[in-house]
Amino acid sequence: MIEPIFASWKHVFKLDPDREINDEALDAVCMSGTDAIMVGGSSGVTFDNTVDLLSRIRRYEVPCALEVTSEEAAVPGFDYYLIPMVLNSRDPQWLVGRQVEAIRQFGSYIPWENTFAEGYIILNADAEAARRSDADARLDDLSVLAYVRLADRLMRMPIVYLEYSGRFGNMGLVRRARSLLTQGRLFYGGGIDSAEKAGEAAAAADTVIVGNIIYSDLAAALKTVQAVKQREN
Amino acid sequence: MIEPIFASWKHVFKLDPDREINDEALDAVCMSGTDAIMVGGSSGVTFDNTVDLLSRIRRYEVPCALEVTSEEAAVPGFDYYLIPMVLNSRDPQWLVGRQVEAIRQFGSYIPWENTFAEGYIILNADAEAARRSDADARLDDLSVLAYVRLADRLMRMPIVYLEYSGRFGNMGLVRRARSLLTQGRLFYGGGIDSAEKAGEAAAAADTVIVGNIIYSDLAAALKTVQAVKQREN
Repeated sequence: MIEPIFASWKHVFKLDPDREINDEALDAVCMSGTDAIMVGGSSGVTFDNTVDLLSRIRRYEVPCALEVTSEEAAVPGFDYYLIPMVLNSRDPQWLVGRQVEAIRQFGSYIPWENTFAEGYIILNADAEAARRSDADARLDDLSVLAYVRLADRLMRMPIVYLEYSGRFGNMGLVRRARSLLTQGRLFYGGGIDSAEKAGEAAAAADTVIVGNIIYSDLAAALKTVQAVKQREN
Repeated sequence: MIEPIFASWKHVFKLDPDREINDEALDAVCMSGTDAIMVGGSSGVTFDNTVDLLSRIRRYEVPCALEVTSEEAAVPGFDYYLIPMVLNSRDPQWLVGRQVEAIRQFGSYIPWENTFAEGYIILNADAEAARRSDADARLDDLSVLAYVRLADRLMRMPIVYLEYSGRFGNMGLVRRARSLLTQGRLFYGGGIDSAEKAGEAAAAADTVIVGNIIYSDLAAALKTVQAVKQREN
Protein backbone atom coordinates (compact mmCIF):
# COMPACT_ATOMS: atom_id res chain seq x y z
CA MET A 1 0.00 0.00 0.00
CA ILE A 2 1.98 2.97 -1.27
CA GLU A 3 0.47 6.44 -0.96
CA PRO A 4 -0.14 7.45 -4.59
CA ILE A 5 1.19 10.95 -4.07
CA PHE A 6 4.58 9.80 -2.90
CA ALA A 7 4.80 6.99 -5.39
CA SER A 8 5.36 9.53 -8.13
CA TRP A 9 7.92 11.68 -6.36
CA LYS A 10 11.47 10.93 -7.39
CA HIS A 11 13.02 14.36 -6.92
CA VAL A 12 12.11 16.97 -4.32
CA PHE A 13 13.61 20.39 -3.66
CA LYS A 14 13.64 21.45 -0.01
CA LEU A 15 13.40 25.18 0.69
CA ASP A 16 14.13 26.77 4.05
CA PRO A 17 11.83 29.68 4.98
CA ASP A 18 14.67 31.15 7.03
CA ARG A 19 16.96 31.52 4.01
CA GLU A 20 16.76 34.12 1.26
CA ILE A 21 15.93 33.12 -2.29
CA ASN A 22 15.29 35.71 -4.98
CA ASP A 23 12.41 35.53 -7.46
CA GLU A 24 14.60 34.44 -10.33
CA ALA A 25 16.09 31.53 -8.39
CA LEU A 26 12.69 30.52 -7.04
CA ASP A 27 11.29 30.55 -10.57
CA ALA A 28 14.07 28.26 -11.74
CA VAL A 29 13.48 25.85 -8.84
CA CYS A 30 9.70 25.71 -9.32
CA MET A 31 9.96 25.32 -13.10
CA SER A 32 12.79 22.79 -12.93
CA GLY A 33 10.64 19.73 -13.38
CA THR A 34 11.06 18.64 -9.75
CA ASP A 35 8.14 16.59 -8.46
CA ALA A 36 7.49 18.64 -5.35
CA ILE A 37 8.76 21.44 -3.16
CA MET A 38 9.16 20.67 0.53
CA VAL A 39 9.24 23.66 2.85
CA GLY A 40 11.06 23.25 6.14
CA GLY A 41 14.12 24.03 8.18
CA SER A 42 15.65 23.19 11.51
CA SER A 43 15.74 26.71 12.98
CA GLY A 44 14.28 30.16 12.48
CA VAL A 45 11.07 28.89 10.88
CA THR A 46 8.14 31.19 11.70
CA PHE A 47 4.55 31.62 10.59
CA ASP A 48 5.48 34.78 8.70
CA ASN A 49 8.44 33.47 6.73
CA THR A 50 6.58 30.23 5.98
CA VAL A 51 3.43 31.95 4.68
CA ASP A 52 5.60 34.31 2.65
CA LEU A 53 7.48 31.46 0.99
CA LEU A 54 4.25 29.53 0.38
CA SER A 55 2.60 32.48 -1.35
CA ARG A 56 5.57 32.84 -3.68
CA ILE A 57 5.65 29.10 -4.51
CA ARG A 58 1.89 29.12 -5.10
CA ARG A 59 2.37 31.07 -8.34
CA TYR A 60 3.56 27.78 -9.80
CA GLU A 61 1.82 24.47 -10.31
CA VAL A 62 4.39 22.33 -8.50
CA PRO A 63 2.97 20.45 -5.46
CA CYS A 64 4.04 21.97 -2.18
CA ALA A 65 4.47 20.16 1.15
CA LEU A 66 5.20 21.62 4.56
CA GLU A 67 7.49 19.70 6.89
CA VAL A 68 6.02 20.74 10.22
CA THR A 69 8.75 21.27 12.80
CA SER A 70 7.05 23.88 14.98
CA GLU A 71 3.42 24.42 15.86
CA GLU A 72 3.62 28.15 15.25
CA ALA A 73 4.65 27.63 11.63
CA ALA A 74 1.76 25.28 10.75
CA VAL A 75 0.50 27.47 7.91
CA PRO A 76 -2.73 26.45 6.11
CA GLY A 77 -2.79 26.13 2.34
CA PHE A 78 -0.11 23.54 1.62
CA ASP A 79 -0.97 20.46 -0.44
CA TYR A 80 0.60 18.11 2.12
CA TYR A 81 1.77 18.21 5.71
CA LEU A 82 4.67 15.97 6.67
CA ILE A 83 5.26 15.27 10.35
CA PRO A 84 8.82 14.26 11.22
CA MET A 85 9.22 11.69 14.00
CA VAL A 86 12.88 11.12 14.89
CA LEU A 87 13.00 7.38 15.48
CA ASN A 88 16.56 7.33 16.79
CA SER A 89 16.18 10.24 19.19
CA ARG A 90 17.12 9.61 22.82
CA ASP A 91 14.39 12.06 23.83
CA PRO A 92 10.77 10.91 23.34
CA GLN A 93 9.80 14.55 22.83
CA TRP A 94 11.26 14.33 19.32
CA LEU A 95 9.67 10.98 18.63
CA VAL A 96 6.07 11.53 19.80
CA GLY A 97 5.94 14.23 22.51
CA ARG A 98 5.89 17.39 20.41
CA GLN A 99 3.60 15.71 17.91
CA VAL A 100 1.10 14.77 20.62
CA GLU A 101 1.23 18.33 21.96
CA ALA A 102 0.47 19.72 18.49
CA ILE A 103 -2.39 17.26 17.94
CA ARG A 104 -3.72 18.15 21.39
CA GLN A 105 -3.67 21.83 20.49
CA PHE A 106 -4.96 21.76 16.91
CA GLY A 107 -7.18 18.70 17.24
CA SER A 108 -9.84 18.61 14.60
CA TYR A 109 -8.31 21.44 12.55
CA ILE A 110 -5.60 19.11 11.29
CA PRO A 111 -6.18 18.15 7.62
CA TRP A 112 -5.63 14.47 8.28
CA GLU A 113 -6.25 13.35 4.72
CA ASN A 114 -3.17 15.30 3.64
CA THR A 115 -1.04 14.71 6.71
CA PHE A 116 1.61 11.98 6.83
CA ALA A 117 4.33 10.87 9.21
CA GLU A 118 7.96 10.76 8.20
CA GLY A 119 10.00 8.24 10.15
CA TYR A 120 13.35 10.05 10.34
CA ILE A 121 16.57 8.20 10.98
CA ILE A 122 19.31 10.81 11.39
CA LEU A 123 22.72 9.41 10.53
CA ASN A 124 25.16 12.32 10.68
CA ALA A 125 26.07 12.89 14.33
CA ASP A 126 27.71 16.22 13.48
CA ALA A 127 24.60 17.71 11.91
CA GLU A 128 22.52 20.40 13.58
CA ALA A 129 19.45 18.16 13.17
CA ALA A 130 21.14 15.39 15.16
CA ARG A 131 22.18 17.72 17.95
CA ARG A 132 18.80 19.39 18.25
CA SER A 133 16.88 16.13 18.34
CA ASP A 134 19.46 14.33 20.51
CA ALA A 135 19.66 11.57 17.92
CA ASP A 136 21.77 8.48 18.45
CA ALA A 137 23.29 8.89 15.00
CA ARG A 138 26.25 6.52 15.44
CA LEU A 139 24.33 3.39 14.50
CA ASP A 140 25.80 0.34 12.85
CA ASP A 141 24.20 -0.87 9.63
CA LEU A 142 22.14 -3.62 11.26
CA SER A 143 20.61 -1.12 13.66
CA VAL A 144 19.74 1.26 10.83
CA LEU A 145 18.02 -1.56 8.99
CA ALA A 146 16.15 -2.55 12.17
CA TYR A 147 14.86 1.02 12.50
CA VAL A 148 13.77 0.87 8.87
CA ARG A 149 11.77 -2.30 9.49
CA LEU A 150 10.28 -0.87 12.66
CA ALA A 151 9.06 2.19 10.72
CA ASP A 152 7.77 0.20 7.77
CA ARG A 153 6.36 -2.92 9.40
CA LEU A 154 5.33 -1.95 12.91
CA MET A 155 4.54 1.74 12.55
CA ARG A 156 3.44 1.42 8.92
CA MET A 157 4.84 4.83 8.12
CA PRO A 158 4.32 6.03 4.57
CA ILE A 159 7.76 7.70 4.49
CA VAL A 160 11.03 6.39 5.92
CA TYR A 161 13.62 9.16 5.72
CA LEU A 162 17.36 8.49 5.90
CA GLU A 163 18.86 11.88 6.71
CA TYR A 164 22.61 12.44 6.40
CA SER A 165 22.08 16.19 6.61
CA GLY A 166 25.06 17.89 4.96
CA ARG A 167 27.04 14.74 4.24
CA PHE A 168 26.66 12.28 1.37
CA GLY A 169 25.63 8.95 2.84
CA ASN A 170 26.38 5.28 2.39
CA MET A 171 24.46 4.38 -0.78
CA GLY A 172 24.92 0.65 -0.22
CA LEU A 173 23.09 0.99 3.08
CA VAL A 174 20.40 3.20 1.52
CA ARG A 175 19.81 0.57 -1.15
CA ARG A 176 19.53 -2.21 1.43
CA ALA A 177 17.10 -0.11 3.43
CA ARG A 178 14.90 0.40 0.40
CA SER A 179 14.91 -3.31 -0.37
CA LEU A 180 13.35 -4.02 3.04
CA LEU A 181 10.37 -1.72 2.63
CA THR A 182 6.99 -3.33 2.05
CA GLN A 183 4.70 -0.31 2.01
CA GLY A 184 6.67 2.82 2.87
CA ARG A 185 8.74 4.93 0.54
CA LEU A 186 12.43 5.62 1.15
CA PHE A 187 13.42 9.29 1.18
CA TYR A 188 17.10 10.15 1.09
CA GLY A 189 18.59 13.50 2.01
CA GLY A 190 22.11 14.79 2.56
CA GLY A 191 25.11 16.07 0.65
CA ILE A 192 23.70 16.08 -2.87
CA ASP A 193 25.72 18.83 -4.54
CA SER A 194 26.08 17.48 -8.08
CA ALA A 195 24.24 15.63 -10.82
CA GLU A 196 26.49 12.65 -10.23
CA LYS A 197 25.62 12.29 -6.56
CA ALA A 198 21.96 12.88 -7.34
CA GLY A 199 22.07 10.01 -9.82
CA GLU A 200 23.73 7.72 -7.30
CA ALA A 201 21.14 8.58 -4.67
CA ALA A 202 18.32 8.07 -7.15
CA ALA A 203 19.60 4.57 -7.86
CA ALA A 204 19.48 3.75 -4.14
CA ALA A 205 16.43 5.58 -2.75
CA ASP A 206 12.85 6.07 -3.92
CA THR A 207 12.88 9.83 -3.47
CA VAL A 208 15.87 12.18 -3.43
CA ILE A 209 15.74 15.42 -1.46
CA VAL A 210 17.98 18.26 -2.62
CA GLY A 211 18.36 21.22 -0.27
CA ASN A 212 21.46 23.20 0.65
CA ILE A 213 23.00 23.30 -2.80
CA ILE A 214 20.08 25.45 -4.00
CA TYR A 215 21.50 28.28 -1.92
CA SER A 216 25.18 27.84 -2.76
CA ASP A 217 25.19 26.68 -6.40
CA LEU A 218 21.82 26.99 -8.11
CA ALA A 219 23.06 25.72 -11.48
CA ALA A 220 24.34 22.52 -9.87
CA ALA A 221 21.07 22.14 -7.97
CA LEU A 222 19.02 22.41 -11.15
CA LYS A 223 21.10 19.70 -12.82
CA THR A 224 20.10 17.21 -10.13
CA VAL A 225 16.53 17.10 -11.47
CA GLN A 226 17.41 15.49 -14.78
CA ALA A 227 20.05 13.31 -13.15
CA VAL A 228 17.41 11.83 -10.87
CA LYS A 229 14.70 11.54 -13.50
CA GLN A 230 16.94 9.76 -15.98
CA ARG A 231 17.96 7.16 -13.46
CA GLU A 232 15.96 3.97 -13.48
CA ASN A 233 15.82 2.55 -9.98
CA MET B 1 -8.28 -0.64 6.69
CA ILE B 2 -8.95 -2.87 9.68
CA GLU B 3 -6.96 -6.08 9.98
CA PRO B 4 -9.56 -8.81 9.45
CA ILE B 5 -8.26 -10.89 12.34
CA PHE B 6 -8.76 -8.16 14.89
CA ALA B 7 -12.03 -7.02 13.39
CA SER B 8 -13.69 -10.16 14.71
CA TRP B 9 -12.22 -10.10 18.22
CA LYS B 10 -14.57 -8.69 20.83
CA HIS B 11 -13.41 -10.66 23.86
CA VAL B 12 -9.89 -11.85 24.64
CA PHE B 13 -8.56 -13.72 27.67
CA LYS B 14 -5.00 -12.83 28.67
CA LEU B 15 -2.97 -15.57 30.33
CA ASP B 16 0.30 -14.98 32.16
CA PRO B 17 2.94 -17.70 31.67
CA ASP B 18 4.33 -16.87 35.11
CA ARG B 19 1.07 -17.77 36.90
CA GLU B 20 -0.29 -21.23 37.60
CA ILE B 21 -3.48 -22.40 35.93
CA ASN B 22 -4.66 -26.00 36.24
CA ASP B 23 -5.93 -28.09 33.33
CA GLU B 24 -9.55 -27.79 34.31
CA ALA B 25 -9.42 -24.00 34.48
CA LEU B 26 -7.49 -23.77 31.23
CA ASP B 27 -10.09 -26.00 29.55
CA ALA B 28 -12.87 -23.70 30.74
CA VAL B 29 -11.03 -20.62 29.46
CA CYS B 30 -10.23 -22.11 26.04
CA MET B 31 -13.76 -23.51 25.58
CA SER B 32 -15.48 -20.35 26.87
CA GLY B 33 -16.27 -18.89 23.48
CA THR B 34 -13.66 -16.15 23.80
CA ASP B 35 -12.31 -14.95 20.46
CA ALA B 36 -8.64 -15.36 21.29
CA ILE B 37 -6.12 -16.08 24.02
CA MET B 38 -3.34 -13.58 24.47
CA VAL B 39 -0.25 -14.84 26.28
CA GLY B 40 1.84 -12.27 28.08
CA GLY B 41 2.90 -10.81 31.39
CA SER B 42 4.99 -8.02 32.77
CA SER B 43 7.51 -10.09 34.72
CA GLY B 44 8.81 -13.63 35.02
CA VAL B 45 8.04 -14.54 31.41
CA THR B 46 10.56 -17.06 30.07
CA PHE B 47 10.94 -19.24 27.01
CA ASP B 48 10.15 -22.33 29.08
CA ASN B 49 6.97 -21.15 30.77
CA THR B 50 5.75 -19.59 27.50
CA VAL B 51 6.31 -22.71 25.41
CA ASP B 52 4.68 -24.78 28.15
CA LEU B 53 1.56 -22.62 28.21
CA LEU B 54 1.39 -22.54 24.40
CA SER B 55 1.53 -26.32 24.14
CA ARG B 56 -1.36 -26.62 26.58
CA ILE B 57 -3.49 -24.01 24.76
CA ARG B 58 -2.73 -25.68 21.43
CA ARG B 59 -4.98 -28.60 22.33
CA TYR B 60 -7.86 -26.22 21.62
CA GLU B 61 -8.96 -24.45 18.47
CA VAL B 62 -9.01 -20.94 19.92
CA PRO B 63 -6.59 -18.51 18.19
CA CYS B 64 -3.53 -17.76 20.27
CA ALA B 65 -1.44 -14.58 20.24
CA LEU B 66 1.82 -13.85 22.01
CA GLU B 67 2.38 -10.39 23.39
CA VAL B 68 6.15 -10.16 23.06
CA THR B 69 7.68 -8.37 26.03
CA SER B 70 11.07 -10.03 26.09
CA GLU B 71 13.25 -11.37 23.31
CA GLU B 72 14.02 -14.58 25.19
CA ALA B 73 10.33 -15.51 25.34
CA ALA B 74 9.67 -15.10 21.59
CA VAL B 75 8.44 -18.66 21.15
CA PRO B 76 7.58 -19.89 17.62
CA GLY B 77 4.20 -21.43 16.91
CA PHE B 78 1.73 -18.73 17.91
CA ASP B 79 -0.90 -17.56 15.43
CA TYR B 80 -0.05 -13.89 16.01
CA TYR B 81 2.72 -11.83 17.56
CA LEU B 82 1.77 -8.53 19.13
CA ILE B 83 4.52 -5.99 19.82
CA PRO B 84 3.72 -3.46 22.55
CA MET B 85 5.06 0.06 22.06
CA VAL B 86 4.42 2.26 25.08
CA LEU B 87 3.54 5.59 23.49
CA ASN B 88 3.48 7.55 26.74
CA SER B 89 6.75 6.22 28.12
CA ARG B 90 9.35 8.78 29.11
CA ASP B 91 12.03 6.33 28.03
CA PRO B 92 12.38 5.69 24.28
CA GLN B 93 13.60 2.17 25.10
CA TRP B 94 9.98 1.21 25.78
CA LEU B 95 8.70 2.98 22.72
CA VAL B 96 11.11 1.80 20.01
CA GLY B 97 14.48 0.87 21.54
CA ARG B 98 13.83 -2.67 22.74
CA GLN B 99 11.81 -3.35 19.60
CA VAL B 100 14.66 -2.21 17.35
CA GLU B 101 17.07 -4.39 19.32
CA ALA B 102 14.81 -7.41 18.87
CA ILE B 103 14.40 -6.76 15.14
CA ARG B 104 18.17 -6.32 14.86
CA GLN B 105 18.71 -9.68 16.54
CA PHE B 106 16.00 -11.79 14.90
CA GLY B 107 15.93 -10.00 11.54
CA SER B 108 14.47 -12.15 8.84
CA TYR B 109 13.19 -14.81 11.22
CA ILE B 110 10.34 -12.58 12.32
CA PRO B 111 7.00 -13.79 10.86
CA TRP B 112 6.03 -10.30 9.69
CA GLU B 113 2.74 -11.32 8.15
CA ASN B 114 1.48 -12.28 11.60
CA THR B 115 3.24 -9.56 13.59
CA PHE B 116 1.47 -6.36 14.61
CA ALA B 117 2.23 -3.34 16.76
CA GLU B 118 0.10 -2.42 19.74
CA GLY B 119 0.20 1.28 20.57
CA TYR B 120 -0.09 1.14 24.36
CA ILE B 121 -1.27 4.10 26.38
CA ILE B 122 -0.87 3.20 30.06
CA LEU B 123 -3.27 5.15 32.25
CA ASN B 124 -2.89 3.78 35.77
CA ALA B 125 0.18 5.40 37.32
CA ASP B 126 0.13 2.93 40.22
CA ALA B 127 0.34 -0.15 38.02
CA GLU B 128 3.46 -2.26 37.70
CA ALA B 129 3.30 -1.79 33.91
CA ALA B 130 3.45 2.00 34.33
CA ARG B 131 6.39 1.83 36.72
CA ARG B 132 8.37 -0.60 34.62
CA SER B 133 7.90 1.35 31.39
CA ASP B 134 8.27 4.77 33.09
CA ALA B 135 4.95 5.82 31.58
CA ASP B 136 3.60 9.32 32.04
CA ALA B 137 0.22 7.91 33.10
CA ARG B 138 -1.23 11.10 34.59
CA LEU B 139 -2.55 12.45 31.31
CA ASP B 140 -5.58 14.65 30.92
CA ASP B 141 -8.29 13.49 28.53
CA LEU B 142 -7.20 15.71 25.65
CA SER B 143 -3.68 14.31 25.82
CA VAL B 144 -4.98 10.74 25.82
CA LEU B 145 -7.05 11.49 22.72
CA ALA B 146 -4.02 13.12 21.08
CA TYR B 147 -2.00 9.94 21.69
CA VAL B 148 -4.85 7.94 20.17
CA ARG B 149 -4.80 10.05 17.02
CA LEU B 150 -1.02 9.86 16.83
CA ALA B 151 -1.20 6.05 16.97
CA ASP B 152 -4.06 5.75 14.50
CA ARG B 153 -3.30 8.53 12.01
CA LEU B 154 0.45 9.05 12.04
CA MET B 155 1.73 5.64 13.06
CA ARG B 156 -1.18 3.75 11.47
CA MET B 157 -1.07 1.16 14.21
CA PRO B 158 -3.57 -1.67 13.84
CA ILE B 159 -4.17 -1.80 17.61
CA VAL B 160 -4.49 1.13 20.03
CA TYR B 161 -4.51 -0.24 23.57
CA LEU B 162 -5.84 1.74 26.53
CA GLU B 163 -4.40 -0.05 29.56
CA TYR B 164 -5.72 0.73 33.04
CA SER B 165 -3.99 -2.38 34.39
CA GLY B 166 -5.77 -3.43 37.58
CA ARG B 167 -8.23 -0.53 37.71
CA PHE B 168 -11.49 -0.06 35.83
CA GLY B 169 -11.09 2.93 33.55
CA ASN B 170 -13.08 5.93 32.38
CA MET B 171 -15.51 4.43 29.86
CA GLY B 172 -16.53 7.86 28.57
CA LEU B 173 -12.93 8.49 27.57
CA VAL B 174 -12.58 5.00 26.08
CA ARG B 175 -15.68 5.63 23.96
CA ARG B 176 -14.35 8.97 22.73
CA ALA B 177 -11.04 7.35 21.89
CA ARG B 178 -12.75 4.70 19.82
CA SER B 179 -14.79 7.30 17.95
CA LEU B 180 -11.56 8.93 16.72
CA LEU B 181 -10.08 5.80 15.16
CA THR B 182 -10.05 5.58 11.38
CA GLN B 183 -8.20 2.32 10.81
CA GLY B 184 -6.99 0.95 14.14
CA ARG B 185 -8.94 -1.11 16.63
CA LEU B 186 -9.38 -0.02 20.24
CA PHE B 187 -8.34 -2.59 22.85
CA TYR B 188 -9.33 -1.97 26.45
CA GLY B 189 -7.80 -3.67 29.48
CA GLY B 190 -8.03 -3.16 33.22
CA GLY B 191 -10.20 -4.00 36.19
CA ILE B 192 -12.80 -6.19 34.51
CA ASP B 193 -13.92 -8.45 37.35
CA SER B 194 -17.62 -8.93 36.55
CA ALA B 195 -20.07 -9.42 33.70
CA GLU B 196 -21.40 -5.93 34.33
CA LYS B 197 -18.04 -4.21 33.88
CA ALA B 198 -17.29 -6.40 30.88
CA GLY B 199 -20.52 -5.24 29.28
CA GLU B 200 -19.71 -1.60 29.95
CA ALA B 201 -16.25 -1.99 28.46
CA ALA B 202 -17.67 -3.79 25.44
CA ALA B 203 -19.98 -0.85 24.79
CA ALA B 204 -17.00 1.53 24.79
CA ALA B 205 -14.12 -0.39 23.18
CA ASP B 206 -13.77 -2.65 20.15
CA THR B 207 -12.01 -5.43 22.03
CA VAL B 208 -12.13 -6.20 25.75
CA ILE B 209 -9.18 -7.92 27.44
CA VAL B 210 -9.89 -9.92 30.59
CA GLY B 211 -6.89 -11.03 32.64
CA ASN B 212 -6.39 -11.05 36.41
CA ILE B 213 -9.88 -12.22 37.34
CA ILE B 214 -9.15 -15.56 35.65
CA TYR B 215 -6.79 -16.33 38.51
CA SER B 216 -8.90 -15.03 41.39
CA ASP B 217 -12.50 -15.84 40.36
CA LEU B 218 -12.75 -18.12 37.36
CA ALA B 219 -16.54 -18.25 37.39
CA ALA B 220 -16.76 -14.46 37.18
CA ALA B 221 -14.16 -14.45 34.42
CA LEU B 222 -16.13 -16.93 32.34
CA LYS B 223 -19.27 -14.80 32.63
CA THR B 224 -17.51 -11.88 30.94
CA VAL B 225 -17.53 -13.73 27.62
CA GLN B 226 -21.28 -13.70 27.16
CA ALA B 227 -21.55 -10.22 28.65
CA VAL B 228 -19.23 -8.91 25.94
CA LYS B 229 -20.72 -10.92 23.10
CA GLN B 230 -24.30 -9.89 23.88
CA ARG B 231 -23.39 -6.22 23.86
CA GLU B 232 -23.88 -4.40 20.59
CA ASN B 233 -21.33 -1.64 20.28
